[in-house]
Amino acid sequence: MSNQVFNFGAGPSMLPVPVMEQIQAEMRDYQGRGMSIIEMNHRSDEFQEIIASAKTLFREMMELPDNYRVLWSHGGGGMQFNSVAMNLLGLHPQNKALYCNTGFFSTWAIKEARRFGKVDVITSSEETGFDHIPSLDPTLVDGDAAYLHITTNNTMMGTRWNGFPSPLPMPLIGDATSEILSRPIDVTQFGLLYAGLQKNLGPPGLAAIIIREDLLGHASPHIARQLDYTVLAETDSMPSTPNVFGIYVNRLVLDWTKREGGPKAMEERNARKAERLYGVIDSSDFYQGHARPEDRSHQNYTFAVPNGELLAMFFAEAEAQGLHGMKSPPMREDVRASMYNAMPMQGAEVLAGFMEDFERRHG
Amino acid sequence: MSNQVFNFGAGPSMLPVPVMEQIQAEMRDYQGRGMSIIEMNHRSDEFQEIIASAKTLFREMMELPDNYRVLWSHGGGGMQFNSVAMNLLGLHPQNKALYCNTGFFSTWAIKEARRFGKVDVITSSEETGFDHIPSLDPTLVDGDAAYLHITTNNTMMGTRWNGFPSPLPMPLIGDATSEILSRPIDVTQFGLLYAGLQKNLGPPGLAAIIIREDLLGHASPHIARQLDYTVLAETDSMPSTPNVFGIYVNRLVLDWTKREGGPKAMEERNARKAERLYGVIDSSDFYQGHARPEDRSHQNYTFAVPNGELLAMFFAEAEAQGLHGMKSPPMREDVRASMYNAMPMQGAEVLAGFMEDFERRHG
Repeated sequence: MSNQVFNFGAGPSMLPVPVMEQIQAEMRDYQGRGMSIIEMNHRSDEFQEIIASAKTLFREMMELPDNYRVLWSHGGGGMQFNSVAMNLLGLHPQNKALYCNTGFFSTWAIKEARRFGKVDVITSSEETGFDHIPSLDPTLVDGDAAYLHITTNNTMMGTRWNGFPSPLPMPLIGDATSEILSRPIDVTQFGLLYAGLQKNLGPPGLAAIIIREDLLGHASPHIARQLDYTVLAETDSMPSTPNVFGIYVNRLVLDWTKREGGPKAMEERNARKAERLYGVIDSSDFYQGHARPEDRSHQNYTFAVPNGELLAMFFAEAEAQGLHGMKSPPMREDVRASMYNAMPMQGAEVLAGFMEDFERRHG
Repeated sequence: MSNQVFNFGAGPSMLPVPVMEQIQAEMRDYQGRGMSIIEMNHRSDEFQEIIASAKTLFREMMELPDNYRVLWSHGGGGMQFNSVAMNLLGLHPQNKALYCNTGFFSTWAIKEARRFGKVDVITSSEETGFDHIPSLDPTLVDGDAAYLHITTNNTMMGTRWNGFPSPLPMPLIGDATSEILSRPIDVTQFGLLYAGLQKNLGPPGLAAIIIREDLLGHASPHIARQLDYTVLAETDSMPSTPNVFGIYVNRLVLDWTKREGGPKAMEERNARKAERLYGVIDSSDFYQGHARPEDRSHQNYTFAVPNGELLAMFFAEAEAQGLHGMKSPPMREDVRASMYNAMPMQGAEVLAGFMEDFERRHG
């Protein structure tokens, strides 16, 4: 970092330093072509190489079988709440789908899907403030629905699914926006996995979608052409001009992730950060973790301090010390700190040290 | 330019050199904040300042009355073909709209709108290969439709509307993707004017929309939330995470356009380029202009050379001399060269000189 700011924001979030260096270095002259990648035609050899390479990197690191496709769609995870419903509700004659409600973004996805079909929320942790992942026996799920949707990691709540409900009698759909590539995920358990780029993949405004081919071809006639997974699959994600910069940065981040050892290495690295941070919370009466220990996220950390005055001081002192971007999730008086793949262990150390010091001084 | 490449591509296209320099300079440290703008939260003061400033610059340079709003939407012009229909067909009880067909993108816009309503093509220049803008008397237009859609400048055809059909008994909608800010446009003649960024505004993947407020509130219930103009107006174009990089670059390009004198100065500069280029075409029997002289675009230049062999040589020699990005439009054996606002007069001189030399050697 140019002057040692650590960004603990929930997203858009830190990108790896070598990625930022490369973007800057080749911003005015991409690989000796005398112009920037954002000035080049998306049908150029240069951009074709980028998108092909990004797909290959996803395939390798997520061990995708041949019958899965990698797509990019305009908009982030929020747009996908709509796209999943518009593309897949047609799999059921009455446009019915099942959703698990495990937090802020699940709730939003449910709201969007209800605009287009019948949604049954088969499990929810809302009553306890979304502090855990409700148990769900896949063998008891009624197969009369187009799909079952889960949020694999809950940004606002600091929880994650450790095992996924599988096998199911219908496709499992996963919103992995805030954790993709942070640990190995067995994609064959899912029919579709999607992620807005802005946490572990790249800049905001674009989503990556991994979809099993048999789920193509069921879109609503009312869907925008650019959001139709089948059209995206047929046009290599370019029904018209794509977000060239987003896909370019995504490729660089995928490259970096692979060089660093891929999802398995990220899982170990994130576990070390989690051990340090949750260690501070668990050994303290000052900090109260929000998520139940067995469902804790290794990407998003949520915890309370004793009162609102201390909360305001916590944020102010953190910012003053270069610990940027922590704030309260909507409608909760907690601290939320996010540490995605690009956050080095040093960032976790600095935050943990700050928390220990803050407790010593104010506890 | 770092090594004197001129990009005559139809888009994504050249961005102004000072804009590219600034993007590069602050890519890793936006205004001393120790991080990139693409790593920052879109609710941050920094990004709020960017989007507010971009709106103000649009308002100033396009002289927008108070009852017009400036919005950004994911996707480029192609997504807007869909969004215009989904947002505005509801203005008519039978979802009927009128379109003028003046080229490749008009045809595509018509095709998209037909998925959602009844479209009457009231005028077309298709029979003569879209070589002109058909005349249209606004007083003869039947008012029984939601809107009338035109493409103000036709990228593939090299034509533009010099006067717009106005006043009309319904809102006039203009796709100004390939010419926005290239000349003063009286926005009050339009209910809505839209433009994909990738020609005169910024990088690909985003569209800017200027809409009169009374056209909000008529969207189809089937529209994606992120594409609904009313939702965009209510959320300051941020129903969820926006394309931060696109809006950031858009602001820089708007800043540059203002510093250079705004649409009036751009019009004069583009007219000088046009005089030089069309001068070569008109004084030659070797080059045949595609567009009728009275409807010629000052952004996109289309012309034929005597045969396919010479066409291939023209492209190859041009590329070898650093004149990048010219190619044939779909289904035509013409040259298309594009010179948007960011192309300096020197680029027009270099291209004209190349054309004169090519004719001398091969004519």
